[in-house]
Amino acid sequence: MKMPESQNKITGKEILYSILNSYSQVFFSTSKTLAVFLVVISFFDYGAGIGGLVAVIIANLLAWNLGYNTYLLRSGLYGFNALLVGLGVGLYYQPSPEVYILVAITALTCFFLTVVFQGVLGKYGLPFLSVPFLLTIWIVALSANSLSALNLSERGIFVYNELYSLGGKIFVDFYDFLEKSIGSSFIRIYFHSLGAIFFQTHLLAGIVIALGLLIYSRITLVLSVLGFTVAFLFYRLVGIEFDSLGYTFIGFNYILTAIALGGYYLVPGRISFGWIIILLPAVVLITTSTQQVFMLFRISPYSLPFNVIVLVFLYALKLREQRPRHLIETPVQLGKPEKNLYLYSGNMKRFPAAYPVSATLPFFGEWTASQAHNGEYTHKGAWRHAFDFVITDRKGQQFKNEGDFAEDYYCFGKAVLAPADGIVAEAIDSIPDNTIGDVNTKDNWGNTVIIKHNETLYSKLSHLKFHSVEVKTGDSVKKGQLIGRCGNSGRSPYPHLHFQFQANPYVGSSTIDYPFGHYLLKE
Amino acid sequence: MKMPESQNKITGKEILYSILNSYSQVFFSTSKTLAVFLVVISFFDYGAGIGGLVAVIIANLLAWNLGYNTYLLRSGLYGFNALLVGLGVGLYYQPSPEVYILVAITALTCFFLTVVFQGVLGKYGLPFLSVPFLLTIWIVALSANSLSALNLSERGIFVYNELYSLGGKIFVDFYDFLEKSIGSSFIRIYFHSLGAIFFQTHLLAGIVIALGLLIYSRITLVLSVLGFTVAFLFYRLVGIEFDSLGYTFIGFNYILTAIALGGYYLVPGRISFGWIIILLPAVVLITTSTQQVFMLFRISPYSLPFNVIVLVFLYALKLREQRPRHLIETPVQLGKPEKNLYLYSGNMKRFPAAYPVSATLPFFGEWTASQAHNGEYTHKGAWRHAFDFVITDRKGQQFKNEGDFAEDYYCFGKAVLAPADGIVAEAIDSIPDNTIGDVNTKDNWGNTVIIKHNETLYSKLSHLKFHSVEVKTGDSVKKGQLIGRCGNSGRSPYPHLHFQFQANPYVGSSTIDYPFGHYLLKE
Amino acid sequence: MKMPESQNKITGKEILYSILNSYSQVFFSTSKTLAVFLVVISFFDYGAGIGGLVAVIIANLLAWNLGYNTYLLRSGLYGFNALLVGLGVGLYYQPSPEVYILVAITALTCFFLTVVFQGVLGKYGLPFLSVPFLLTIWIVALSANSLSALNLSERGIFVYNELYSLGGKIFVDFYDFLEKSIGSSFIRIYFHSLGAIFFQTHLLAGIVIALGLLIYSRITLVLSVLGFTVAFLFYRLVGIEFDSLGYTFIGFNYILTAIALGGYYLVPGRISFGWIIILLPAVVLITTSTQQVFMLFRISPYSLPFNVIVLVFLYALKLREQRPRHLIETPVQLGKPEKNLYLYSGNMKRFPAAYPVSATLPFFGEWTASQAHNGEYTHKGAWRHAFDFVITDRKGQQFKNEGDFAEDYYCFGKAVLAPADGIVAEAIDSIPDNTIGDVNTKDNWGNTVIIKHNETLYSKLSHLKFHSVEVKTGDSVKKGQLIGRCGNSGRSPYPHLHFQFQANPYVGSSTIDYPFGHYLLKE
Repeated sequence: MKMPESQNKITGKEILYSILNSYSQVFFSTSKTLAVFLVVISFFDYGAGIGGLVAVIIANLLAWNLGYNTYLLRSGLYGFNALLVGLGVGLYYQPSPEVYILVAITALTCFFLTVVFQGVLGKYGLPFLSVPFLLTIWIVALSANSLSALNLSERGIFVYNELYSLGGKIFVDFYDFLEKSIGSSFIRIYFHSLGAIFFQTHLLAGIVIALGLLIYSRITLVLSVLGFTVAFLFYRLVGIEFDSLGYTFIGFNYILTAIALGGYYLVPGRISFGWIIILLPAVVLITTSTQQVFMLFRISPYSLPFNVIVLVFLYALKLREQRPRHLIETPVQLGKPEKNLYLYSGNMKRFPAAYPVSATLPFFGEWTASQAHNGEYTHKGAWRHAFDFVITDRKGQQFKNEGDFAEDYYCFGKAVLAPADGIVAEAIDSIPDNTIGDVNTKDNWGNTVIIKHNETLYSKLSHLKFHSVEVKTGDSVKKGQLIGRCGNSGRSPYPHLHFQFQANPYVGSSTIDYPFGHYLLKE
Repeated sequence: MKMPESQNKITGKEILYSILNSYSQVFFSTSKTLAVFLVVISFFDYGAGIGGLVAVIIANLLAWNLGYNTYLLRSGLYGFNALLVGLGVGLYYQPSPEVYILVAITALTCFFLTVVFQGVLGKYGLPFLSVPFLLTIWIVALSANSLSALNLSERGIFVYNELYSLGGKIFVDFYDFLEKSIGSSFIRIYFHSLGAIFFQTHLLAGIVIALGLLIYSRITLVLSVLGFTVAFLFYRLVGIEFDSLGYTFIGFNYILTAIALGGYYLVPGRISFGWIIILLPAVVLITTSTQQVFMLFRISPYSLPFNVIVLVFLYALKLREQRPRHLIETPVQLGKPEKNLYLYSGNMKRFPAAYPVSATLPFFGEWTASQAHNGEYTHKGAWRHAFDFVITDRKGQQFKNEGDFAEDYYCFGKAVLAPADGIVAEAIDSIPDNTIGDVNTKDNWGNTVIIKHNETLYSKLSHLKFHSVEVKTGDSVKKGQLIGRCGNSGRSPYPHLHFQFQANPYVGSSTIDYPFGHYLLKE
Repeated sequence: MKMPESQNKITGKEILYSILNSYSQVFFSTSKTLAVFLVVISFFDYGAGIGGLVAVIIANLLAWNLGYNTYLLRSGLYGFNALLVGLGVGLYYQPSPEVYILVAITALTCFFLTVVFQGVLGKYGLPFLSVPFLLTIWIVALSANSLSALNLSERGIFVYNELYSLGGKIFVDFYDFLEKSIGSSFIRIYFHSLGAIFFQTHLLAGIVIALGLLIYSRITLVLSVLGFTVAFLFYRLVGIEFDSLGYTFIGFNYILTAIALGGYYLVPGRISFGWIIILLPAVVLITTSTQQVFMLFRISPYSLPFNVIVLVFLYALKLREQRPRHLIETPVQLGKPEKNLYLYSGNMKRFPAAYPVSATLPFFGEWTASQAHNGEYTHKGAWRHAFDFVITDRKGQQFKNEGDFAEDYYCFGKAVLAPADGIVAEAIDSIPDNTIGDVNTKDNWGNTVIIKHNETLYSKLSHLKFHSVEVKTGDSVKKGQLIGRCGNSGRSPYPHLHFQFQANPYVGSSTIDYPFGHYLLKE
């Protein structure tokens, strides 16, 4: 529970990472390259750029200072909603000291809302997406009229001036060329909507982001076009006016929904693409209806439709009793559709009849689950999906001799492996092993390694041997890689390996029911 | 966990049932007669009728295809909210291909919202009522202005035309006769409100539904009149205009609340009727206030007041520490107030001093609860209200000889009985018994029968003997009827009967605290 | 579970207490003096005063009659939201029989909403504050236009008339004097806002309340001024019009937030005052934005901003992984900032390096935790933060001789102490001890004492010896005071002390993770 060292360990590199990741998380990614790209785009409007940066720094400072999870902090998860709010506020007002005080207050509000929604939606196993951003930006937008000391920005109206200030005459000419050559309103509104994700109103911003996606992940780009196209066709079919998307922050809902569901939360493929086509009309209806409501208050629903459909759909899929083979949630979400697809295909080859799961048992050879899922013994309640593994001999004994020493136990010192690819979220290695029969009630889980497989899938390997852990926080690990050795540290009366999947990186997290046992029993 | 056969078992009859039950569920029932009645009424407006049918079929197809619970599917619980949405959309627009595409999209949206609210409200032990319908119909109604390719229906304005097309001159004359003979605006608005539950604007529809209720359940009819009368008197007392109820979809809130609380969720009787009188004025206030809010968006609150009051009241009753004898939740809700009342009275005679519970112990003779509620041993967390039963001899031993064989255990092979009337929601019979000491970690609960007693009360009997189960899914069972025999299948190291009450039909559901132990300890 | 005696025990004194506490709870207190003060103020407007009293009586009657927790009832927790609603309705309308029927209906609605939010927010360990009041007052306010039989009050417009009727010419002159001498609109609006907490529009009411706070708790008064000042400065900085606060029920949000967070839920001190300064601007933004929304419906957000910020902030603090020393939640909230501070300082002296917790072990000498937090054995799920304590000898044995008799156990009959100051919320003493090996499954927890330390911290000491309990419900106890003796009653196969912290006073409550173990392991 105590991890005083982790607080001191914050280095300059980690500060930089937490800031950069706050940018790339907007696209569900932790790619540093993409982050640099997005930082640059955010500064297309320098007021927005500064606002975003200030907000990210304040949110991350709060997370660090108040003792929130350093791993999530480093992943940018505490910062990206505040970033969006900062961009929005920075864009809306003319830069002034008061505006940056306002940015600071909204970043603080957004940060606390992030923590709250992480807690509340986390109880349902759902990501918080951009819900904290939404609430905060609405607070700002609704207050806008009352804040008479702040001046609205007139940027966006004089696009040419800004372009000139950014890149001189070349930029202006290039922009002019684009405007003229893109005759199709469909394509122009697509680029506008892409840019609007980062509160950019220039056509150019959208084009640069599209370019970034092309380099970073082609599936993502294809999905963004697919989502937008389906929405466009449905607009036509039922007679909704399309051009209004050209000057509102609304169209990106179709793009984000397609990316999130088509490539990240579902395994990308014909089926996931099909569901995008089925679901997008519903997103359109949610968009037009919420617009009617928000119009009355003179604010935009922003990304509300995207948040609603993704949360509803993901939660509904979770509640299925049988998981049909043709609609598959990403088992190990790796921040890039291409990787999700690769991982899935790889497993399909090896386990053709089984679930698309990359997880393997975290050891070699034959072990016994002394306590498996919903066991009659102790893994109950929040810990009901955990496994305790030991090695037994033919007589079912776990030890030789009298079992008075840790070394007598067959599993003690045996290799413990990463069950799947991932990044080490936590590595504790400094807790001595107990003598047999004793338990260490202070360091409950003992030496423990937590590996992040995706945003909502982590595995925890506990009670490892003192000083046996071979990885450190932040390390990237491959499936089957040696992590440490089975030990007897923590609340462990005799050597065994505690293994569980969980939805977040905390040492004390409850388990989730990930279809791991299926392999266990087939092996 | 795996139940591949149930997916294949879907027969034509079951498809028909799932569709019919989607209609009768609107009145908390699974009566086929009532269903046929309601199908006919829905086609009074053929656009609405088709819309409703299309929506039901799409919702049920999704439930079946995506692997949701087949029992709930058959009960119409996945379909009835979509039905209401389909009726509403079908009525609102003139029939056209686009309209039925819209119906399909809204049915899909409504289906996913049904699953979500089943999950979320289920966590609080509450039914989802028509909350999914509400959200979906608001989405459609708010989008209506934007959908310029669809034409609003002008039906309802030309009632006579429609009546003529339905039943010729006889119908028109009859309707004319009704209109003239029912002078009282109170009675006319009552019938209008009754019809409005099915989106019917004709007076006739209300009269037919009233007739249906008269045949199906007189208590229901009486309650509907009581609720409406109390509301009417309160309108008078505080000076709210009453006639507006004649052309809005609002008045049925008073009828539905009275039926739901007066006869279904509470044991019908003087006390439940008294509470209807106390609560109805609050429903009126919720109605007038929500109308003020929704008026601004030019939509109706529809059944929102009904949903609010029923959910608030049921949840508040759940949180009581002591259950006073004069306000009693239906212990086993049987879809018809008359049955609820009968069941309650029967029990009151037999157990005059006790709770009105029909549940008995699921076996004959004297057994021992090796693990009862909140036991010190293993029934913890979500399973904390479960019982494990065994038979012990005078020395407290559970077996004769060495206990090495299942047959040595006194309880093995003994009859297991239905603890209360109900319908079999799940029956698994194909899992071999374990040898003593082994556990089957794959089929956790072993051979299992789940019996539905009411919408939120199910009992589960687990670890039954291989091929001993005497009932099959869908069977109606009586209290005390032989269900199967005590066995040693699933995660059971030695023969015992696992018994629990739970709030839904899933094999892996958590237990609920139903006052069963009271009898147990009195016996 | 059964506590029939508690229902009969309701005496006249207890009825009076439940009514008085409903008044002082508005300021998070159970002070009888403060209550009398507030009752008097409420009758400054006799319509409001009667309305408030009627509402409190109805809510408390419902709580008592329907079997809700008598301890919470006595603390005024079921009454204070209804009180506020009754005051509001009573003030808004001219007194008439219809108005008091309306008060009764809204009190009933508010009561059920209180129970519901106690349940829902309680799941997150949060207080329900004035959320039930908010929903109810909005229902009334939105319905106001429709209730044509009720006449709006014109009081408040003729302040002088009322003052005259209250206190004759002296009052009028005094009021006149005040109005003239308080030139500063800041000070006048401060007093107005203070009075508005009790729906009083007179300047005088604010001044009397300020006087009451000065006597009752100076820190509370200072905080109220601090919060109001910060809000005022922020209004100036961003140019929000300040004077509108003079005639709306809005400004008290700044006062209540400062009091709640600065002195009750956080340990008062420089840090808590600092956070008030940081958070108040966010409260201002939430206020201005919600006002924009509610303005459209012509209603006030009332205390919504206060509720939002307090719930968000408290929940976010709960989710911290590490508790930094400079932002500390009150460990034992004692209804008065001064006491909270004193308690904290006292502990800081004794445990300079530790958490500011006043809890000590509930016994003398050295005991063994046979099951501590998240134990491998049985304290799982909702009970995972519980402790079972026994006394062991050098060989680790818990008993002498054969352990066949309760008296053989070292812990049996040993003193059990109050772990911290508090009030006895429940004391059960009438359950016989079991013979060794037996368990009493009917009275699960056996003889049990529950002590309330603050609104959300209770401790439970269970399985006490038959007739050993030395305290009774309502007693005030000091840390270390003798409560009873270790026994073997309830579901206890051998003598031990079950100890847990929990968030509410119910016998069956789940445990919370209160940093008690820290001391345990340091001792």
